[in-house]
Amino acid sequence: MLNTQKTQVLDCTIRDGGLVNNWDFSIDFVRDLYHYLNTAGVDVMEIGYKNSPKLVSTEGVGPWRFLDDHFLKEVIPNKQQTKLSAIVDIGRVDENDMLPCTESHLDMIRIACYLKDIDKAIKLNNTFKALGYETSVNIMAVSNAMEHDLSEALVKLNESSVDIAYIVDSYGSLYPRDIAYLVDKFSLQCPNKKLGIHAHNNLQLAYANTLTAIEKGIQYLDCSVYGMGRAAGNCPTELILGYLKDPQYEVKPVYEGIEKLMIPLRKKVEWGYIIPYTITGQLNEHPRSAMALRHSENKDRYKDFYDQLTTVETTLD
Amino acid sequence: MLNTQKTQVLDCTIRDGGLVNNWDFSIDFVRDLYHYLNTAGVDVMEIGYKNSPKLVSTEGVGPWRFLDDHFLKEVIPNKQQTKLSAIVDIGRVDENDMLPCTESHLDMIRIACYLKDIDKAIKLNNTFKALGYETSVNIMAVSNAMEHDLSEALVKLNESSVDIAYIVDSYGSLYPRDIAYLVDKFSLQCPNKKLGIHAHNNLQLAYANTLTAIEKGIQYLDCSVYGMGRAAGNCPTELILGYLKDPQYEVKPVYEGIEKLMIPLRKKVEWGYIIPYTITGQLNEHPRSAMALRHSENKDRYKDFYDQLTTVETTLD
Repeated sequence: MLNTQKTQVLDCTIRDGGLVNNWDFSIDFVRDLYHYLNTAGVDVMEIGYKNSPKLVSTEGVGPWRFLDDHFLKEVIPNKQQTKLSAIVDIGRVDENDMLPCTESHLDMIRIACYLKDIDKAIKLNNTFKALGYETSVNIMAVSNAMEHDLSEALVKLNESSVDIAYIVDSYGSLYPRDIAYLVDKFSLQCPNKKLGIHAHNNLQLAYANTLTAIEKGIQYLDCSVYGMGRAAGNCPTELILGYLKDPQYEVKPVYEGIEKLMIPLRKKVEWGYIIPYTITGQLNEHPRSAMALRHSENKDRYKDFYDQLTTVETTLD
Repeated sequence: MLNTQKTQVLDCTIRDGGLVNNWDFSIDFVRDLYHYLNTAGVDVMEIGYKNSPKLVSTEGVGPWRFLDDHFLKEVIPNKQQTKLSAIVDIGRVDENDMLPCTESHLDMIRIACYLKDIDKAIKLNNTFKALGYETSVNIMAVSNAMEHDLSEALVKLNESSVDIAYIVDSYGSLYPRDIAYLVDKFSLQCPNKKLGIHAHNNLQLAYANTLTAIEKGIQYLDCSVYGMGRAAGNCPTELILGYLKDPQYEVKPVYEGIEKLMIPLRKKVEWGYIIPYTITGQLNEHPRSAMALRHSENKDRYKDFYDQLTTVETTLD
């Protein structure tokens, strides 16, 4: 593993947080957040998805789901130290939408990928690399991967031109000991790549898991302000910045951002430690059933929800 | 360290949670909670403080602050597997209030103690041991202890008749690596004692720190339902029970307890991941300044609060 370079803090509030509010952030909100993150010394701000509106429904969805390069330059007219990244979903991105990196505000493109799509991810990556972007492949749902499938994917990634291989705990079900195991595995089977971690907080372990990854030498750390992200949310940016000793980072602007941006937002939409997400995390399941529950009138019927997910007839066939 | 016995889960919802609502729990609430905890296989329920109403103001404070043995028998007429404990503060307990253990519903008395009071704690302990109780000494604010003071206290504890020595992260400022260090230290200097951990959640690390302690062989694990406890709260009981593999434990009744008891309560009083508590945790300070802030009209003025706690003129003299 290449861990000689300094830690890179990547804030994904707008991107992963957009999964909570359908990317309904105002331009001022995103611009202000960029200011706070840049002042705090955050290395990269992930400002949304670069999916294609031709391939995904745009109904009721904000512009951060389909980042347009010209729009982006209006949003952040004075780009400063903090770089910008976007993520793409396999099958939802049109490669023809992409400008060369030198003509774009975006510095990095990340590819979200399930193990079965690793070849597609590497093919997409080659396009983005040819356009001059820094790239990552983010292997989702790694807690459900079979060992030999993961090994095969890591060997392929290691031989590719991808810059960063990401461990993604999509279900928020991994423990620090699992992260230690996975970082060792990625380091061994992907020695040519930088490594990153994207944790979810279903079990209140997103920060602890990220700390474990830091101690193991992982370089790219995903986080979001006040933990905003799908379901239980992510590793909070303010906790990471309060921990890292590198003088580049300053936590205070993030606290100001929480005060000004996130507290009002949290009154309208929810994320964080919410029991149905805890339950899906403990059961190592996608949170979609819990998200549906939270949008129903049974949102606080935890016992029934637990029964529903653990009753043998409904879980096995 | 004696770690040959099985893990003991100690739920302190009523005791530490009482610090949030001035112990304003109804008898039905406490009785129902005992039922859920007993059904879940929780080993010990800490049902309050056994301080003396002669030594502490009783104004506006519920009965769980001054547990009376006769009252306790009315509250839990059918005591079952789950044992009961109470905690005492040095200087606030009248030893003459204590019945012999055989005549009391309480099985365990825990003594909360700052390092400077270790001799007083051991003297109190001798009284409680003579009455037949299981005892612990809970060393508070261990993150602020000087090494030689802590060593001296541990040697004294090791030579005493105390059953359990507790690591208490009062400020919620310790990291998993600190817990690993402390468990090693306690194990080395207190080899005759069982060990316990009481974590606070200011940095979203109460559960992770408890997991570290478990891996290091600690036997007594403090937790509270839905994390209810002073300021940022404690390690959630539902996370601990969802993790332990011992078939004695069953997490589902705790989820029912959260649904029935804690969700309505959380709408009236607050605890959990609240930024001022994060800030005092990061600064390794008692949360009292943050608690005062949360009761003021500036409750969400995080930037000013951070400035206030980190401005040199006010922090040094």
